[in-house]
Parts: sequence; C-alpha cells; structure tokens
Amino acid sequence: MQQQTLLLIQCTDEVGLVARISNVLANHQLNIVMMREYVDEANNKFFVRVVCTGFPANQQHLEEDLIAQLPLKANIKINPANRKKIVLLVTKEHHCLADILVRNYFNTLNADVLAVIGNYDVLQEFTEKFDIPFHHVSHENKTKKDFEKEIANLLSTYEADFIILAKFMRILSPDFVGRFEEKLINIHHSFLPAFIGANPYRQAQERGVKIIGATAHFVTNDLDEGPIIVQRTKSIHHGYDLTEMVTAGKEIEKAVLSHALKLLTEDRVMLNGNKTIVFE
Amino acid sequence: MQQQTLLLIQCTDEVGLVARISNVLANHQLNIVMMREYVDEANNKFFVRVVCTGFPANQQHLEEDLIAQLPLKANIKINPANRKKIVLLVTKEHHCLADILVRNYFNTLNADVLAVIGNYDVLQEFTEKFDIPFHHVSHENKTKKDFEKEIANLLSTYEADFIILAKFMRILSPDFVGRFEEKLINIHHSFLPAFIGANPYRQAQERGVKIIGATAHFVTNDLDEGPIIVQRTKSIHHGYDLTEMVTAGKEIEKAVLSHALKLLTEDRVMLNGNKTIVFE
Amino acid sequence: MQQQTLLLIQCTDEVGLVARISNVLANHQLNIVMMREYVDEANNKFFVRVVCTGFPANQQHLEEDLIAQLPLKANIKINPANRKKIVLLVTKEHHCLADILVRNYFNTLNADVLAVIGNYDVLQEFTEKFDIPFHHVSHENKTKKDFEKEIANLLSTYEADFIILAKFMRILSPDFVGRFEEKLINIHHSFLPAFIGANPYRQAQERGVKIIGATAHFVTNDLDEGPIIVQRTKSIHHGYDLTEMVTAGKEIEKAVLSHALKLLTEDRVMLNGNKTIVFE
Amino acid sequence: MQQQTLLLIQCTDEVGLVARISNVLANHQLNIVMMREYVDEANNKFFVRVVCTGFPANQQHLEEDLIAQLPLKANIKINPANRKKIVLLVTKEHHCLADILVRNYFNTLNADVLAVIGNYDVLQEFTEKFDIPFHHVSHENKTKKDFEKEIANLLSTYEADFIILAKFMRILSPDFVGRFEEKLINIHHSFLPAFIGANPYRQAQERGVKIIGATAHFVTNDLDEGPIIVQRTKSIHHGYDLTEMVTAGKEIEKAVLSHALKLLTEDRVMLNGNKTIVFE
Repeated sequence: MQQQTLLLIQCTDEVGLVARISNVLANHQLNIVMMREYVDEANNKFFVRVVCTGFPANQQHLEEDLIAQLPLKANIKINPANRKKIVLLVTKEHHCLADILVRNYFNTLNADVLAVIGNYDVLQEFTEKFDIPFHHVSHENKTKKDFEKEIANLLSTYEADFIILAKFMRILSPDFVGRFEEKLINIHHSFLPAFIGANPYRQAQERGVKIIGATAHFVTNDLDEGPIIVQRTKSIHHGYDLTEMVTAGKEIEKAVLSHALKLLTEDRVMLNGNKTIVFE
Repeated sequence: MQQQTLLLIQCTDEVGLVARISNVLANHQLNIVMMREYVDEANNKFFVRVVCTGFPANQQHLEEDLIAQLPLKANIKINPANRKKIVLLVTKEHHCLADILVRNYFNTLNADVLAVIGNYDVLQEFTEKFDIPFHHVSHENKTKKDFEKEIANLLSTYEADFIILAKFMRILSPDFVGRFEEKLINIHHSFLPAFIGANPYRQAQERGVKIIGATAHFVTNDLDEGPIIVQRTKSIHHGYDLTEMVTAGKEIEKAVLSHALKLLTEDRVMLNGNKTIVFE
Repeated sequence: MQQQTLLLIQCTDEVGLVARISNVLANHQLNIVMMREYVDEANNKFFVRVVCTGFPANQQHLEEDLIAQLPLKANIKINPANRKKIVLLVTKEHHCLADILVRNYFNTLNADVLAVIGNYDVLQEFTEKFDIPFHHVSHENKTKKDFEKEIANLLSTYEADFIILAKFMRILSPDFVGRFEEKLINIHHSFLPAFIGANPYRQAQERGVKIIGATAHFVTNDLDEGPIIVQRTKSIHHGYDLTEMVTAGKEIEKAVLSHALKLLTEDRVMLNGNKTIVFE
Repeated sequence: MQQQTLLLIQCTDEVGLVARISNVLANHQLNIVMMREYVDEANNKFFVRVVCTGFPANQQHLEEDLIAQLPLKANIKINPANRKKIVLLVTKEHHCLADILVRNYFNTLNADVLAVIGNYDVLQEFTEKFDIPFHHVSHENKTKKDFEKEIANLLSTYEADFIILAKFMRILSPDFVGRFEEKLINIHHSFLPAFIGANPYRQAQERGVKIIGATAHFVTNDLDEGPIIVQRTKSIHHGYDLTEMVTAGKEIEKAVLSHALKLLTEDRVMLNGNKTIVFE
C-alpha cells in the first residue's frame, strides 16, 4: 500500500483556509485523496481532516509552512501515531472486553491492547488466554485515592493513547479524570441523555420505553455528560423483562464501543467543546 | 372477507385462563386465528388479544360466559368499534396533519378523521381541501379554561375515540386531560425520556447527541410521562444544524405517529399502568 | 441567508486538483464551507462538490479559470439551477405522488412540481386539489410509440429537470429513455438486485425473505439496472401476508423516493457509469 | 427458576385447535404463559409454540392426550432438548467462529459447542484456547466424497443438533446435505436472493448498491435457496471499497448468525416448506 499522510487541523475559521492548506500540501508533493472539513459557525471554528498520498520529505518544514498560513493557535497534527496503544479497565462483565480482545488477537483493531486492569479478577483467565497482561487492582479495603493511584501508576507505565472503560463500574475522581484528559472512553448502557446514572435498564423498564440504546463517550467530570462519539438504539417491546433488556443491551454496547474504537484509532474524532466532530 | 371477532381481555392472572377463554370461544363456534397474550408477572396481571373467524350469535351471551369463567373485575371488550373516530388538534406545523389527512382521504387509515381543531388558522386551507371541517379556536385573549372549554365542547360533539395532538403546542390542564382519559395521543419530538419539555432539538444539539427520535404516547397529567406507544430514532452527525435536525425529526415524527395510529385503530394497544402492551 | 455558490466538477484524477480548484475559488473571493470529493481509483476519475459563501463577480471568468487549471474534458457545473422542475408520471397508486405533492404544497421540496401525467385518471382529482395540472394520457387503443410520443410532447413543454416515475407501471422504450437520459428517476419496490421484474412482493413472499425494501434509481435501458440513488429495507416476519407486505413496502417506497428527490434537487448526486456518487 | 414445559405442534388447521390444546394442557396442570400460533391459510397448516409453567407428571400421557385431540399426522414436540449440541464447520475466516466460541465460553449461548471442523488449520490455535476440539479435515488430495465422509463421521460421533457453516467455503453434496437435513445452518454474505453464488460483495460493488446484508438460512440442495431464518442489512455509500464492504459485512454476518443461533437453540424456529416460522 502506498504511503499516506494524515493531517488534523483545528483553528479559527477564516476565508481561504482550504486553499491555503491545499497549497502547502501541493508544495510538499502531497496529493489530497480525502478532505473532510467542518465549520462550527456559532463558534467560528474550523476543523479539517486530510488524507494525502505521499509522505513529507521534512515533516517539520511542512508543519512550519502550515503554521505560517494558518491563524494563530492552530492545532496541527501530522501523522499522529496511527497505531494506538490501548488499556482496558473492566469490572465483571465480559462482553465488551471479549469483543475487543478478539479483534486485537486477529489484528483487526488498528491498535494494540497492552493490558487489562480489573477491580475484580473474574476476567483474568479469559484475558490471559490472549497473552495480554491482566492486573487485578481491587477497590476493597483501600481509599478511592489509593485505588486510583494504583491504576494511574499502571496506566503511566503503558503510556496508553486510550483508556477504555469497558463496563468499569467505579466512578472515577476529578483528579483521575483530569490526569487522563481526552484519553478516557466510556461505554454507557443507555442512549444518553436518557437514564443518566445507575441502573439505566431498570429505569428504562419502569418507564416502559420502546427503544433501548448505548452511548460511547469521552469521560469528563460531569458524570455521563462527556462528548458523545457513537450512539445506537434498538427497538424493544413490552415483553422484554429486565434480563432480556440487559442481554439485548449488551449487543448494542459492544457494537457501539467497537465502532467508537474504530473511529478513535483511525483519528476520525475531533473534540469541539462538549461535542465531537466525527469524520466517518 | 370473512367476518371476524376481536376480543380484548384484561384480568388478574390465574392458572388455566387461556384454556377457559378458548373453550368459551369454541362453544360459541368462534375459531381462534390469532391469540397474543402477556402476563405481567410483577403485578399478576393477564392481557390477551384474540382474533377469531366467525361472529357470536349472541354477543351478550358470549360476554356472560366469559365473565363466568374469568376472575372478578375482568375487563372484557368484544368487537370494540373497529372503525375509530378521530379528531386532530394542531398548531402550525403541517407534517403530521398532512400525513394523516392523506391516509384518511385514500381510506388507508382504518379510521375516520371527523375534524381538525387548530389554535391558529394556518392549516385551515389545507384541511378543507379534503372536505374535513377545520375549527379555529384561538388561545389568544381568553383564559386557558375558556380556551379548553371551547375545544372540549367541539370534541364532545364529535364523540371521538382518539384525540390526536398532531404537533399541538399548548399544554393541556389536568381537568381537560382527565376528561378525555385514554383518548389523548401526543407526538413528542424526542426519544423520551430524553429531552423532556421545550425545544428538544435545541437541547439535543447542545448536548451533541448522535441520534434523534420521536415518541407517540398517551397524554397524562405528568408532562411527557404518559404511556409510550411507539418510539423510533435516526442517526445524525455533527454536521446537522438545528434546522436540519428539525427537518429530519419531522420525518420520524410523522412515521411514529402514523404507526401509533395504525396500532390504536386496530385495537392493538392495551394500557398497563404507565406502560402499554402492544400486540403487533 | 448569505449567497452561496455550488460547484460540481468531474474530471480525470491528477495530483494537486484540490489545491488548484481551491486556489481558483480563493482568487474569486469564494470561501469554501463544504467540500466533498471522491476518487474512483479503478477508473482514475475525480469528483468534487464544493459549497462556497460568496458569488462570483463573473461566472464565465470563474469557469474559464477552472478550465485552465483542470484536465481536458473536465465537466464543470457552477450554480446549476437550484430550483429544479419536476414532472411526475403515475398510474393508480397514490402514496408516492401524495407525499411529493404535499411537500410541494408546503414548499419543503426544494423544487417545483409542474405537472402530473397519468395513464389512468384515478389520481386526477387528488392532484388538482393542489392546483397542479393533471394530464391523462391513456395507453389504451394506441401503439406504445404513440403513447410515448404524447408523453414526450408534454414533457418537452415543461422542460423538466427530473421526470419521476412515481409508481408508473408501464415499461418505457429505449427511444423514450434515451431522449430523457439522466432525468428519469424510478422507484422500484424491492431492494435491487433482488426481485428484478414484476411482482417483487409476491416473489418476496414466495421466497420467505425476512426483509423487504425499495430502491430509487436512474432509468436506463437495462430494466431495473440503472444507477442506484437510495435504498432502504425493513424487517418483516412470517406473519406478513401479501397485502401487509405491500402496505409496509409503500411506506419504504415513499420514504426512499422522497429522500432521493431531496438529494437530486440539492445537486448531491453525480453519475459515475452505472453507479452514483452521493454527497450527503 | 420455575420449571417450564415447551410444546411445538404442527398440524392441519381445524376449528378449535387452540381450545383443544389448551384444555389438554390445563388437564395436565400446565399453565400457559406464552402461546404463539400461525395459520398458513394458503396451505391450511397450523403451527403453535407454547410455554407453560409446570411439568407434566407423565409426558407420554400428555402426548397421547394431544394426539387424541389433534388432526392425523400432527407433529408434536414436548420439551425438545433445551440444551442443543452444536458443531461448527469453518474455513479461514474467524469472525463468526470467534463470536460463537466466546458466547460458548461465557455460557450465554444456551447451547454447547462440541467441536470445530476446519478444512484449513488456521483457526485451530484460537479454537483450542477455549478447550474445544478442532479437527482439521483438509479437502486437498482427496475426492469430495472422501472429504465429506470424514466430516460426516466426525459429525456422527458428536450427534450435533445443529451443524453451523460458520463461513465454511466448500459447497456440500446433495448426499451430505440430505444426511443432515434440518440441521445444517449457513451464513450467507448477502441479503438473499440478491447476489446468489460466489463473491457477493464484489457483485454488490459492481452493481453500486447502497445496502449490504447477510442471511442465515437452512441448507438445502438448492444453493442459497434454503429457508431463511434471519436477515439484516446495513446502509453503505459510494466511498466503500471492496475491503470496507467486506469488513462491514462481517459485522452483519456475525450478528445475523448469532441471532439465528439464539432462535434455533430456544426452539423458536419451525420449518414450513421453503420458509421458516420464527416465534420471537
């Protein structure tokens, strides 16, 4: 496959940005094969994702030339590591973990799972089948601070690009979240903002909804309020009891998380305040 | 087409109900072609919808025989009017109204639209194209009580089975709602319980959701909390501005309301507290 | 709303096309707000749709400047009439026609329906409610050639951009199709290429499929083989009899045709041999 | 959980069948909690699936009592083994296999995978991680007859209820298919009857379709023509190259096959000639 260059740029919107950027790329012998842009008119912000064939002879020069053409404080990423490192945090539910470990094993994830950290050890045996290290960090008999410190230390050693809360059932402190900003991804078992908080399926059943869903989102310090990456729903009917809702929901959860991971590892997601731009 | 008998029964659950009911039907020479039942185990309630070929020689005897076999206070409906009468309440948006009037004109609604009541007159000309009476009842320069009294008087003359709030943008008082219990159907422009209240699309845009939806539900005195009949969603992306969300939403709204009407007019919906049983 | 300029360009693929195009646009003071391109690598073809704010002072100069920068035989459209003229051909089924006439009446179609031509007159009364001329051109007692000549003459007087076969149940001759190339749009009642030809729902029922669907496509002289614009499906089950399949199918047909019309009237569809490029 | 009795009955349609069946059940102290029936009117056939609480004191008496009440040649199954035995046939693609093995490992399959047979050995290592025997039966250097005989011998030792062709890429002979009638399940990578035969994704790409899909079906001796159990589709667009279509298709294939397995192992599928009745 021919070598490709990926650019992600975020800056204040101005007239002629596409022309200026594409000129710089042409000067560096890069041929645009895919360009997707978005203008947030309310906030006067410009976002673009460009895929080119070719590779810059000198990436620093390319960056300097782009900076020279773009508004101040432009955020420019050229060829961000296209093989992301991932660490998973789990509790007891296996469905999201297993889906990701299988993809990792067969190398269809476009990323590498480096480790799994669980606050229980029930998923250890399964994880180790795939020769992925499993770290059991119990939350019991210790302060939340100590619990999170242990996890943070492990995460630091792995230098993960993304930390996936694959049904991790502990709420993380603002300190912890702040430390791993823009790296923490959660799968929430409802179509947010419906059923924020605990037991969304029970809430759903009590409300008598006719759809259930799941949401993959960045974690921020507003519980269940982080930028949404992917959401999907499924029709249900009165005959679903709680167990059936949970079972059906797990299928959506793993599909949603897997799709979000694909988008993230392909650098298709850009943050725009409390929202995401997703260039599918 | 052969004559059919429709039964809807709701009662306390007990052993042998299906056998007892089907025996009574067989004794009246009614052959079951479709039987759908649901047991709400938590509340020990039994619901059944039966379609038979044949017609009871004496409907009163059939009812008495059923009562004799069923628990006390069983709710039995035999051949509820299978041609429902519908009155629509509208404000200014045409999409749900137009969809229903076209179906009514071409006789695919399995019901008859008797009249349209609007608190503005913008939809009068369109309505009258189809020879349906349009009553303009303005809410301006009068109390809510007087406004609702005018509407209630009109509704009474039509003896409607269902009163459809087809994008009727006024909140109705508990008195009004109480008077037309189990007859008022609303289409809400979000996938409830997300975005309860005003401007759900604006709320959705600010939250950055990746799905939008609509909900058809019975109206109760808990705003946006009535039993849900039909819900549907649609995927959107960051590129949808508010107008595009509203436009896409209208397509869902009319599809959801139209589907709910089909279910209601075919007597496929039974109420179970704050939920619905829908025998599709 | 600010004035916008729309460009559609189709040419041989070459290095630097995006840069060259965006430079020409910048020189004419046009600011790109949306650019979507597609490279058909197998056939070395480049397609782009650009939306700019601003309006060229001299459209001819803009076109000349683009020609000077693009490969030979580039196909360039600048501000194609953004208010398309539509004529509908119908037979007896109303659902697609009614959907389009209602949108036309409420001015949400982004196009103008100029006339309806029917080979039966059953839809005349409905059409005329909306003050749209209805031409009854019977196919009976005349040759196909004469029948099509009458229709072609009518179409010529209307200079339609798109001729919509809204459940028009006559097969058109190669001569006729050739005369209105790239303007004829059909709605087919199956998810092509399944169930080509007559009675797709009957075929579907006999095959016992669990999904049905519809396809909007350009008409070519290969029956049911023209470039596909939009397809959608719906799950069904064993309980659907033929009538129920047809009824459910009509909902998909009108949604699919309506979506295709939206795309066509917004100039979002480009032809690429037997396929379409759709820039949604 | 309370003990339940499951009945599947298939017979000629007659007046009063539901009453007669439910009476027999009541006489055996079985309380119907779920009854789903279907009448194939064109062929005068009756199908019913009944779930009761309770367990017959004497299953043979129950069967005799039912036979006495039903038309001749009624097909009655009482409590068919509700823990099915499954053997998988695979070639090189892992996605369906992995999905099923993970469900089996975590015991969410409602069935037991006894073995995997592959005509290549590439999936052996993965299979054996889960302590499931993998039999490598190469098709090379032997006649089709010998190849199939080896497989048939293995299958006989396992006495499988269902033999799942989980992307098994060899066409089986009529002899083989005949021997395992109603037990062979295939996942086909298109929404049948579109794209029968080889390379459906290539066919789909050349046709320029806007949806792809997958079909789980019983295998008969008409290639790709067996009774369909589950079908699902997904929207695609012009930008999908062949690889992306295959990748997206695999997600549908595994979801469809997994759903079909759920239905089969819960005894929710009944055969009706070339179609299935699916009581979801």
